[in-house]
Amino acid sequence: MKLTCYPFDLLFSEVFAVSSNARTSTEVIYVELTYKNFTGYGEASFPPYMKEKRNLNLAFLKKLDLTRFESPFEIKNIWEYMDQMSAGYLPAKCAIDIALHDLLGKIAGLPLNKQLGLYSNKPIETTFTIGIGNSEFIERQLHKSAPFKKLKIKLGADLIYNKITIEHLKSKTTKPFGVDFNQGLANKEDAIEMITFLNSMGVLYIEQPLPESLLDNFLWLKDQSPIPIFGDESFQTAADIIRLHTYFDGINIKLMKCGGISKALEMASIAKNLGLKLMLGCMAESSCAVTAASQIASLFDEVDLDGNLIVANDPFTGIQIIDGIISANELNGCGFVKN
Amino acid sequence: MKLTCYPFDLLFSEVFAVSSNARTSTEVIYVELTYKNFTGYGEASFPPYMKEKRNLNLAFLKKLDLTRFESPFEIKNIWEYMDQMSAGYLPAKCAIDIALHDLLGKIAGLPLNKQLGLYSNKPIETTFTIGIGNSEFIERQLHKSAPFKKLKIKLGADLIYNKITIEHLKSKTTKPFGVDFNQGLANKEDAIEMITFLNSMGVLYIEQPLPESLLDNFLWLKDQSPIPIFGDESFQTAADIIRLHTYFDGINIKLMKCGGISKALEMASIAKNLGLKLMLGCMAESSCAVTAASQIASLFDEVDLDGNLIVANDPFTGIQIIDGIISANELNGCGFVKN
Repeated sequence: MKLTCYPFDLLFSEVFAVSSNARTSTEVIYVELTYKNFTGYGEASFPPYMKEKRNLNLAFLKKLDLTRFESPFEIKNIWEYMDQMSAGYLPAKCAIDIALHDLLGKIAGLPLNKQLGLYSNKPIETTFTIGIGNSEFIERQLHKSAPFKKLKIKLGADLIYNKITIEHLKSKTTKPFGVDFNQGLANKEDAIEMITFLNSMGVLYIEQPLPESLLDNFLWLKDQSPIPIFGDESFQTAADIIRLHTYFDGINIKLMKCGGISKALEMASIAKNLGLKLMLGCMAESSCAVTAASQIASLFDEVDLDGNLIVANDPFTGIQIIDGIISANELNGCGFVKN
Repeated sequence: MKLTCYPFDLLFSEVFAVSSNARTSTEVIYVELTYKNFTGYGEASFPPYMKEKRNLNLAFLKKLDLTRFESPFEIKNIWEYMDQMSAGYLPAKCAIDIALHDLLGKIAGLPLNKQLGLYSNKPIETTFTIGIGNSEFIERQLHKSAPFKKLKIKLGADLIYNKITIEHLKSKTTKPFGVDFNQGLANKEDAIEMITFLNSMGVLYIEQPLPESLLDNFLWLKDQSPIPIFGDESFQTAADIIRLHTYFDGINIKLMKCGGISKALEMASIAKNLGLKLMLGCMAESSCAVTAASQIASLFDEVDLDGNLIVANDPFTGIQIIDGIISANELNGCGFVKN
């Protein structure tokens, strides 16, 4: 197999702000893996708040020698090789893992979800994410979210902003919504105040209210909270689930965090059997990675795959979202085409 | 999809004895699932020491209405349907799961291991199992085991038999071997005596020395034993791994116990991430189920897939074992053909 990879900058159609930062672009890497007449594509995304950096992941990918593997049928062996090369570099490994699964499906002549036995004709709803911004911004996003049945609202450290925003939202829509703090709250007192308020607003779930470093607070919060609390930044790999499953009600699994489809499937198995609710999320990334993730969406209780909607220069076409439902295509492999 | 199923009795070429029973046959059920021009095959096996009974599993299979599923691409949905129909019946569900995976591979035109990314050109060694018997029997089995590189010796409650047998074995062969008590020892004192003796004999691992009911003893034994202790009868499903993983060093996963390939993959993920060593085992069963299991063998540290070797009237042809190495074929699906 032959690997090529190159950096690319995804440009957003507008500013995207969460508790830790606001930005208008995201750095990614694309990989292309060729086997016989087939090409598999993969993507690694690098939001600025992640520890992983693009230049180092690119260097890792350049060091890989995949010519030593005859075919994409050796995903397990290729993971062992990558992990022996170096720990970490999970976005780069994710890109390779997506490309390998894309190849597998293309060779089999099947969409990946069918190949994995995960096909379902039950509609898969995805949420529309609304970042942090002023009231005009929120109104504009609400307008954009019209076709979606469910929302995810980003909140942060400022309790007054949080309350005004949610009250504003509730005055404009009756759609169910969850809330994501991205570790934004300062302490458990703020967290419990927010949980009490959000519960009165009928919120579906709360995601990562506190920094991952405040671990003990999560145990206390989970006990106090009438609303399920999902961990996102607290969970990267399967080992984190083993360590932390009692601290949360649910887990947000993202291909970019854990290393792609192989690892997301593994984490979903472990988390489900440890009693966690499963959310499938994404970073700001193009239709390449988002569509790959959609192939395993039927395993999850909550799906939040809208990371590509803000991208103005998406080099791929994949899933379309129609009335808030992921509309799968019948393309072989991961379900995307390079434009 | 259309399901047919029928009972069959596997007859052994000689008596097979373990700590709890001796027998010359095993009851099985075969299932056949048709989708378009493809037929997928599966098997459920019922060794007498298992709680599951053939007549009840056959009744469960007869109740299933798989015509409600359009294709074998819905393995996840079919599992939900089967589990809603009734808990348990894992051999029956295993047979369906094998047949579904056989169909998936046949449709994709790929051996299942390739389709799952588990292909490896690293040779997979399997052990030859020697049941309980007198010294002539042991000699005869040793002769039969000549092509194998590794042995698994069944022992039982009788400490004198155990010692004589192992000393006899050691005088005849230098091959590495593990020992399986099938819950045969009476108490932890006997267990520690056996472990001390077996350690002096260089045994690789000890499997299920005590009944699963003596749970606390396993924690103590694991702490005392210089030899890794694998659980078999103690583990049936993923929930057992969550509950018991600290009590053992390893787990023996069998398709028949857990419900087939879907469940074995899930259990392997969970067990590995909880630090357990992985053994892939089988019941006395035909080349249908044994060959299906071999498709995922590359995930395991120890492989013990010789359940078909004792069967005199095997209705399937699948893996061949050459010099103790599983010789994979290039057949699509699970890798067997009905004779």
